Amino acid sequence: MKRPIVLLTDFGEGSIFVGEMKGSILKINPEATIVDLTNRIRPHDISQAAFLLKYSFRYFPENSIFLCVVDPEVGSKRRPIAIRTKNYFFVGPDNGLMYPAASEDGIICAVLLENRKYFLERVSSTFHGRDVFAPVAAHISKGVAIEDFGPKVNSIKELSIEEPKLDSEGYLVLKVMYVDDFGNVITNLNEKYFTELISREGFIESPTILLEAGSNVHKVKLVKCYSEVEENSPLALFDSFGLLEISVNKGNASKYFSLKEGDSIRVKFQNL
Amino acid sequence: MKRPIVLLTDFGEGSIFVGEMKGSILKINPEATIVDLTNRIRPHDISQAAFLLKYSFRYFPENSIFLCVVDPEVGSKRRPIAIRTKNYFFVGPDNGLMYPAASEDGIICAVLLENRKYFLERVSSTFHGRDVFAPVAAHISKGVAIEDFGPKVNSIKELSIEEPKLDSEGYLVLKVMYVDDFGNVITNLNEKYFTELISREGFIESPTILLEAGSNVHKVKLVKCYSEVEENSPLALFDSFGLLEISVNKGNASKYFSLKEGDSIRVKFQNL
Amino acid sequence: MKRPIVLLTDFGEGSIFVGEMKGSILKINPEATIVDLTNRIRPHDISQAAFLLKYSFRYFPENSIFLCVVDPEVGSKRRPIAIRTKNYFFVGPDNGLMYPAASEDGIICAVLLENRKYFLERVSSTFHGRDVFAPVAAHISKGVAIEDFGPKVNSIKELSIEEPKLDSEGYLVLKVMYVDDFGNVITNLNEKYFTELISREGFIESPTILLEAGSNVHKVKLVKCYSEVEENSPLALFDSFGLLEISVNKGNASKYFSLKEGDSIRVKFQNL
Repeated sequence: MKRPIVLLTDFGEGSIFVGEMKGSILKINPEATIVDLTNRIRPHDISQAAFLLKYSFRYFPENSIFLCVVDPEVGSKRRPIAIRTKNYFFVGPDNGLMYPAASEDGIICAVLLENRKYFLERVSSTFHGRDVFAPVAAHISKGVAIEDFGPKVNSIKELSIEEPKLDSEGYLVLKVMYVDDFGNVITNLNEKYFTELISREGFIESPTILLEAGSNVHKVKLVKCYSEVEENSPLALFDSFGLLEISVNKGNASKYFSLKEGDSIRVKFQNL
Repeated sequence: MKRPIVLLTDFGEGSIFVGEMKGSILKINPEATIVDLTNRIRPHDISQAAFLLKYSFRYFPENSIFLCVVDPEVGSKRRPIAIRTKNYFFVGPDNGLMYPAASEDGIICAVLLENRKYFLERVSSTFHGRDVFAPVAAHISKGVAIEDFGPKVNSIKELSIEEPKLDSEGYLVLKVMYVDDFGNVITNLNEKYFTELISREGFIESPTILLEAGSNVHKVKLVKCYSEVEENSPLALFDSFGLLEISVNKGNASKYFSLKEGDSIRVKFQNL
Repeated sequence: MKRPIVLLTDFGEGSIFVGEMKGSILKINPEATIVDLTNRIRPHDISQAAFLLKYSFRYFPENSIFLCVVDPEVGSKRRPIAIRTKNYFFVGPDNGLMYPAASEDGIICAVLLENRKYFLERVSSTFHGRDVFAPVAAHISKGVAIEDFGPKVNSIKELSIEEPKLDSEGYLVLKVMYVDDFGNVITNLNEKYFTELISREGFIESPTILLEAGSNVHKVKLVKCYSEVEENSPLALFDSFGLLEISVNKGNASKYFSLKEGDSIRVKFQNL
């Protein structure tokens, strides 16, 4: 059974470091299938990587190996680990990045990467992506059992994706988790949370959203697809991540609402 | 016979959405060969994608599957289709993008993508690239006949690449179709059109070009390769697309002439 | 034995020209393994490409074929060549780019690419990457011997990577060779040179570095990994290239020190 290796890093798309990691993999497994999830994680932003991995890992085939390198503590005492979950493998630093996805899939075991025979011969102190994690992923893709890399660890570092909060004025406080290349603004409000909310609070299925971004308040329609509103008009929908996304039909919502990753917005739902 | 899958999207290079589409493909065909034509189409710019596909599809092997996702109307009533041409397959929304390339190669048949057993189980309303088109392309790469995806359609949406026009002052009005990463300015004047023009109008083979960009008029030599003129000097040539390209040797023509995609320029050929 | 093809170009990441080159390769060898080292070389910057190739080729498997296309003289009289070294192949224009890596690995022979049966049928004058070099690399990946491409050449163009210089005030003058996506500033001082210097000059192993960038002088600690200093504090270390790198922990050294590729900096080592 083929085990593709999926890269998730903050090295920058098309970075030579991504190229070197692929070299490292092919040196060990010339038949490896390598695919980039994305290498455009914001530098050092473990939370963004954790968020994107949690919402995309399930689109990859069973037995995929997620090679996750957002690793600002590289070379220090943070632990290099590999995780076996119900359907996947995860390899990277134990800094929380892999936790939301791995725990959602169901962690079977995690090991400390200690067996140096699976690393490059010379391990730098600044690039374990190339020297430790890529070689380990390549060995897993060839069928090496994760127990062979080192001793089991009892627990791994946890990290939780920020959840929406209800404030005293009845607004939901959301966080901008990701802005895509179209300028779509992706929040942390998932459809399940929303469905429970509308049934509990008695909203209709497609309420209007009162959206407060910065000092401005906007009325935005909750729709099913972008082209339901006029061109250059704002809208909201539950997107392909299953998350509330603020968008502008054929436009750029990030610019329209002056919103960027990490910003907070407040929303309230209305029946009219 | 191997059928590589070639991606052409406006998701942005290295976008996580491109990564997810590749996951979708590998889930269905772990042996698929996947290659990016480019994912840097301007957001929503169907015409640019159609232009670039028309001028590059022939460099790919027979039976390649072009997975074309510039899809601003995703989730609405625009039709998802697959096309079989003489040498290739094309999969994407029926919005004109695939028409110039497919019709040039010779359309054999086109089908509506209707058979849900070839889609992801859960189809979002905003990302048919991942949920419909990538799975269909993956199934084609495994040998599924396109008739299996749904009923034949009698016609597909046409789109024509803008042609040069001759204006009343004897100038050819050209459109800037693409600016590459060097700043080379690629127009819609193809070599065949030019060859007919020079034989009809009695120009020598390497005339001087009078080029009007904005309010400035420039004299530019028509040459065969960039280094025929001095460094930082402007030039024009018929490039690897077979199109008239305005360039600056080791410089940036887009900046030099203040030209960007979509701009019009006027040119006139002179024997001196 | 599998021979992966490794791309190194200045076409821009995700450029359609990179896509076309991959099409050209797959047309000849549908089973080729293709991997991007990087396509983000500064336009026309042969030296930067030569530098990055020299410091990364060894991370790729034996028999890798480096397809190196930074080729401002394309279509002129510069020679297209292929090189066989002790462990690798190199294909590209004879402009010095491949020399530092190839000579370090040990050149066995070099040939002029002359046999047109290995090129695309129609060779443009502006894109030998697609029409000459990619097809030749594809044929090498299928096992064609490099002698089949054309006659041996007695010598190839040499290019040397700039070395640090000691100035009259006892400072080492270094060049900024590369700034990565984190803003790390990578210089041309390699660890071996430094080790000889400290033993000769009697420095301790982790001296302080007096760093002169522009008109400012900074004191920077030489450490082993980024997180040894406080967040947003500057540091220096020998990085994964084995080169002196100026960095800021979780920050951007290029901005912090106002340094960009091509700049000179002066450094002096002190025991305190």
